[in-house]
Amino acid sequence: MGNRFGTLFTITTFGESHGPAVGVVIDGCPPKIPISEEEIQVELDRRRPGQSKITTPRKERDQVEILSGIFEGKTTGMPITLLVRNKDANPKAYDHLKNVYRPSHADFTYETKYGFRDHRGGGRSSARETIGRVASGAIAKKVLKLTHNIEIVGYVSQIHHLKGNIDYQLVSQEMVEETIVRCPDKATAPKMIAAIENARKEGDSLGGIIGCVARAVPPGLGTPVFDKLKADLAKAMMSIPATMGFEIGSGFSSVEMTGHSHNDPFYMDKDKVRTRTNHSGGTQGGISNGEDIYFNVAFKPTGTIAKEQETVSTDHQSVTLSAKGRHDPCVVPRAVPIVEAMTALVLVDHLLRQRAISVL
Amino acid sequence: MGNRFGTLFTITTFGESHGPAVGVVIDGCPPKIPISEEEIQVELDRRRPGQSKITTPRKERDQVEILSGIFEGKTTGMPITLLVRNKDANPKAYDHLKNVYRPSHADFTYETKYGFRDHRGGGRSSARETIGRVASGAIAKKVLKLTHNIEIVGYVSQIHHLKGNIDYQLVSQEMVEETIVRCPDKATAPKMIAAIENARKEGDSLGGIIGCVARAVPPGLGTPVFDKLKADLAKAMMSIPATMGFEIGSGFSSVEMTGHSHNDPFYMDKDKVRTRTNHSGGTQGGISNGEDIYFNVAFKPTGTIAKEQETVSTDHQSVTLSAKGRHDPCVVPRAVPIVEAMTALVLVDHLLRQRAISVL
Amino acid sequence: MGNRFGTLFTITTFGESHGPAVGVVIDGCPPKIPISEEEIQVELDRRRPGQSKITTPRKERDQVEILSGIFEGKTTGMPITLLVRNKDANPKAYDHLKNVYRPSHADFTYETKYGFRDHRGGGRSSARETIGRVASGAIAKKVLKLTHNIEIVGYVSQIHHLKGNIDYQLVSQEMVEETIVRCPDKATAPKMIAAIENARKEGDSLGGIIGCVARAVPPGLGTPVFDKLKADLAKAMMSIPATMGFEIGSGFSSVEMTGHSHNDPFYMDKDKVRTRTNHSGGTQGGISNGEDIYFNVAFKPTGTIAKEQETVSTDHQSVTLSAKGRHDPCVVPRAVPIVEAMTALVLVDHLLRQRAISVL
Amino acid sequence: MGNRFGTLFTITTFGESHGPAVGVVIDGCPPKIPISEEEIQVELDRRRPGQSKITTPRKERDQVEILSGIFEGKTTGMPITLLVRNKDANPKAYDHLKNVYRPSHADFTYETKYGFRDHRGGGRSSARETIGRVASGAIAKKVLKLTHNIEIVGYVSQIHHLKGNIDYQLVSQEMVEETIVRCPDKATAPKMIAAIENARKEGDSLGGIIGCVARAVPPGLGTPVFDKLKADLAKAMMSIPATMGFEIGSGFSSVEMTGHSHNDPFYMDKDKVRTRTNHSGGTQGGISNGEDIYFNVAFKPTGTIAKEQETVSTDHQSVTLSAKGRHDPCVVPRAVPIVEAMTALVLVDHLLRQRAISVL
Repeated sequence: MGNRFGTLFTITTFGESHGPAVGVVIDGCPPKIPISEEEIQVELDRRRPGQSKITTPRKERDQVEILSGIFEGKTTGMPITLLVRNKDANPKAYDHLKNVYRPSHADFTYETKYGFRDHRGGGRSSARETIGRVASGAIAKKVLKLTHNIEIVGYVSQIHHLKGNIDYQLVSQEMVEETIVRCPDKATAPKMIAAIENARKEGDSLGGIIGCVARAVPPGLGTPVFDKLKADLAKAMMSIPATMGFEIGSGFSSVEMTGHSHNDPFYMDKDKVRTRTNHSGGTQGGISNGEDIYFNVAFKPTGTIAKEQETVSTDHQSVTLSAKGRHDPCVVPRAVPIVEAMTALVLVDHLLRQRAISVL
Repeated sequence: MGNRFGTLFTITTFGESHGPAVGVVIDGCPPKIPISEEEIQVELDRRRPGQSKITTPRKERDQVEILSGIFEGKTTGMPITLLVRNKDANPKAYDHLKNVYRPSHADFTYETKYGFRDHRGGGRSSARETIGRVASGAIAKKVLKLTHNIEIVGYVSQIHHLKGNIDYQLVSQEMVEETIVRCPDKATAPKMIAAIENARKEGDSLGGIIGCVARAVPPGLGTPVFDKLKADLAKAMMSIPATMGFEIGSGFSSVEMTGHSHNDPFYMDKDKVRTRTNHSGGTQGGISNGEDIYFNVAFKPTGTIAKEQETVSTDHQSVTLSAKGRHDPCVVPRAVPIVEAMTALVLVDHLLRQRAISVL
Repeated sequence: MGNRFGTLFTITTFGESHGPAVGVVIDGCPPKIPISEEEIQVELDRRRPGQSKITTPRKERDQVEILSGIFEGKTTGMPITLLVRNKDANPKAYDHLKNVYRPSHADFTYETKYGFRDHRGGGRSSARETIGRVASGAIAKKVLKLTHNIEIVGYVSQIHHLKGNIDYQLVSQEMVEETIVRCPDKATAPKMIAAIENARKEGDSLGGIIGCVARAVPPGLGTPVFDKLKADLAKAMMSIPATMGFEIGSGFSSVEMTGHSHNDPFYMDKDKVRTRTNHSGGTQGGISNGEDIYFNVAFKPTGTIAKEQETVSTDHQSVTLSAKGRHDPCVVPRAVPIVEAMTALVLVDHLLRQRAISVL
Repeated sequence: MGNRFGTLFTITTFGESHGPAVGVVIDGCPPKIPISEEEIQVELDRRRPGQSKITTPRKERDQVEILSGIFEGKTTGMPITLLVRNKDANPKAYDHLKNVYRPSHADFTYETKYGFRDHRGGGRSSARETIGRVASGAIAKKVLKLTHNIEIVGYVSQIHHLKGNIDYQLVSQEMVEETIVRCPDKATAPKMIAAIENARKEGDSLGGIIGCVARAVPPGLGTPVFDKLKADLAKAMMSIPATMGFEIGSGFSSVEMTGHSHNDPFYMDKDKVRTRTNHSGGTQGGISNGEDIYFNVAFKPTGTIAKEQETVSTDHQSVTLSAKGRHDPCVVPRAVPIVEAMTALVLVDHLLRQRAISVL
């Protein structure tokens, strides 16, 4: 329970941070989609640890192996299994955390829930779990691209107090990948990088905001009343480790507008019904309307820090903790491909659902 | 598809705004829970139209009828069906909207998705759908209360620019119900009411924020990795009509903190592991930690307004629209019991899921 | 849990035998399917008690009311709710059964499972629950007919020792409806009717076998590996009250054949790949192959009988029981439309699933 | 879609016969269950090819590797991934089948459904898929044993015309494992073995019946109305390759009894409510009643035979086929652990479901 996502295009991720492997099984991928290990690897490389000076130094190539479901370069409609062996696992490095609850981590809650805990680097609660999301998201992206030319671009819009000046309509993946912080505002990106490096030096950590836009999504995706597109996107995003908030379109700022200024007037753009503004963020009544879908996701500062912290041990004694293991001073840049992957998974699922009902 | 919510305690809502009835079927409610029509009615009355001068004048008593699943005052474990007949339906009042797409409503998207649309007051996209949520939420609340003394309190914290000064730890349902706007800040509530009345006069509408707190939730609820408590709450909230954003604990403001200030230190409160701060909002690793669960939900200003708006007709002509039907100038006060109901549904579902795995 | 059937075209049935009503909510019906209350009523009338001298004398017209999801005579894609009020409920007639476990009924198991039981005519375990199946099956049949001209015909092939001489390829619904026992073998049908009447006189009951054939099912329906068409049909059938067995194609008799005689050779019938024999029953690898799908379902003799039986009371005393209420001496003839409905529900679900994956 | 089984204890199997690997992910296994690779291997060895002279000569050790979800010898509550690498895959041996539809195999239906087919040994439709079932079933068995001392014993009761003389109440696993045909009737077993060997010599194949009994199942498992225990068992069994029929308790023979002789009278066995006979097969109203659960499953003769057969090619020409690859002349003996595994999976799922609803 809880390790599966999706209704028709479903993924089940598995694996612990310092166990033998992590991976994913995709059930429900349509047949005849061409996909290669290389295409999947491209996305994993964007998520990979050690990719730049502002990420964790854990050395993992995160090399994907296709175990099933792809034959002669194409999906067969059978479950697709993607496996990544953990190569730089170092369980012993976590022995000093075995008997302590790290603040704002899942140690206490997992142990309470399951009566038992894999303490090695957070076990299943580690962000290494997201490898399966990104790998399966690569296939979801391919389906979206092939069938509807849909493009999904995520980007860092804020790190700590530093806000990028970004127009979601103009961002391209090339602009995003130009800097290691994945902020397309060239003026702000270097400041963000410096801030993250500084946080690491101080044994502290930073949070930030990721914006994401999905373009060319056809109208009609999303399902009333519970599986609204915005609801499924919210769940997808809030299932990512370290997320604290989600907003679509005008989001929290809509509260300070009135209906007359917030409503998106329809007009005809040649043969196409379009809206003049897009405060709705591309969905109305929970269903895509053909405009860009865009949203923001808030990430808290990384829980793991080198600075001393107060906490308690598993035998209920007050202790002081200074984390030693390897960690990211800011997870936000590496989370960009995760946000994109989850977006792709939601969209491809609703694409299949929409096909299912269109019998007449 | 899409009209069901929950994994073990599942609800399926049905019905259109101006059809014969709306309602809900609950599948998975534990047996032997005492519940009466009166207890359900209390919650429906808090959601009911026409309850105050700042709501729609549609006259519905929203009288609930129990059709199944309850015998001699107690749940039997069988599906519980709750029905509310529409009494003040007035489909003809919507004839002028038959051939027009209302801006920021679901008219265009439903018609595109289904090739066909029930134009009567939005049909299924109307907030009347939420009657089923509130009715089933009343039963979920009862289960939570009986088994764990869990209490859920929602409240209005902001309307347009007016922000209440509220401590989530101190809010009681009594304080909330003291004013028709359901804001427990006595100084701000009258200003909010005036602002809403003024918006109605101007043919405009307002949005706002609902805060919600769940108290006495035992640690261990929520399921890694996709069905995190925060993820399921996010989906639950973003499935409510007019919602634009969700944040838990420190939410979007966490972005401007550092790890050291944001982390919640553990300490021993007698025999109990507790946290000194609660930036996490009562969940860590997606699982409740025993602290208060609290979050915010942003609602946009109501889409239906009397003011003239630009739009297009179903035959793709530019037209001008002034809505005539009955509507709320601000849905936020009436949405408080909906937010509470969805919270209760998420919590009761995870309560049952937690029981399921505890065989040893 | 357990009251829902289907993956994409899902039904949730509700209601007790002697409660206010029984019914069903269908979620996932495609939009724009024309359907009327009359069409649904036709199927309910075939299931209705009191329809002939060999059924229970309970007087129910089983009049269906459409509560949602159908607008201007067509499905809208929204949940369809179908309600049948219980008119001839007589809970008092069951007072003498309140404290006793009827043999081979669900009294003991429900009470053990739920710690609590609705004793009125079996409550939820009554075959009145199947009203929701038959009503929703009428819509499923319509979808199958409209989109693929699929026809489903169920028939009684055996009652007690009396076996009809029937070729599944030749049976039509007209032939089935010619006799009240729904056996298309005109020579055997009167003997079956006499046997049932005789059983009633003796205070006893009889079982039988229902055969069913689905014609014009396109190849490609059914999903490896768990949701094979034969597996979903087996579950559908074995979920009907009083069923004891299911076999598809050559079924149990396949055991006494060899591979060479059992295999169905392919040949070309003009442009179409067909099989010379159809021992497979129209599915191979769990997927339809375009041939007729046919299967048998065994029903035990009705549990309720007037004859004296040994049993125990709820307070664990030995007692003797002679059932008084109204009951069928043989449920098999009335179960024909139930078998057809469940078949239609399985097929329409797989039809939608097949559409979902065909994006390229 | 279709590769997942279960509601709370869910398995997703993956892998093709001649791809790199086959395996399973279990989601929802309770934590703290002790389990080792050895315990899983024991079950896989019972299913393994080449285990005796009456099975396929394909040489696979089917060595299982645990990739996740087990830590320090105990389940953690996280998804458990079990992997078996294909060692003796020989895709080239199937080149001659690439362009032909094998009779009574899934070649034609897979190709029609997916527009594309992995022809290597049936790909996903191969019984190698059941490795994941047996491996996960080993864990399910352990949970049942540990928590309720439940025992599941499957056995061969018939091969072709040869019927064993077996009392389901007396069969033990030791008796079953005494002969390679897994028939506990010592007199008939050698005849069955000879018949299978003879069929192989003749290039033909045989079918048979597997009986199965589950003992010590507590009353209360199974869920009305669709997820009846008998319905879920039927689906589980009919999802196994080559199955043609399922019957529980008195099964098809119940048809020739009357209600008075078929009903199982209740009586008090000390403090326990029991039934004098067990025609119901241990379930009533779809819920276990505490008596032995027993049922039969019919398997057709293996589709793959060496004898010449008529069929058509993928380009629609009439051809003659003589299968060359390695195959079982009778799959029934190797299917015994599969039947047991599926039974265990159904029971453990309902065990967890039952816990979920028992909050009061």
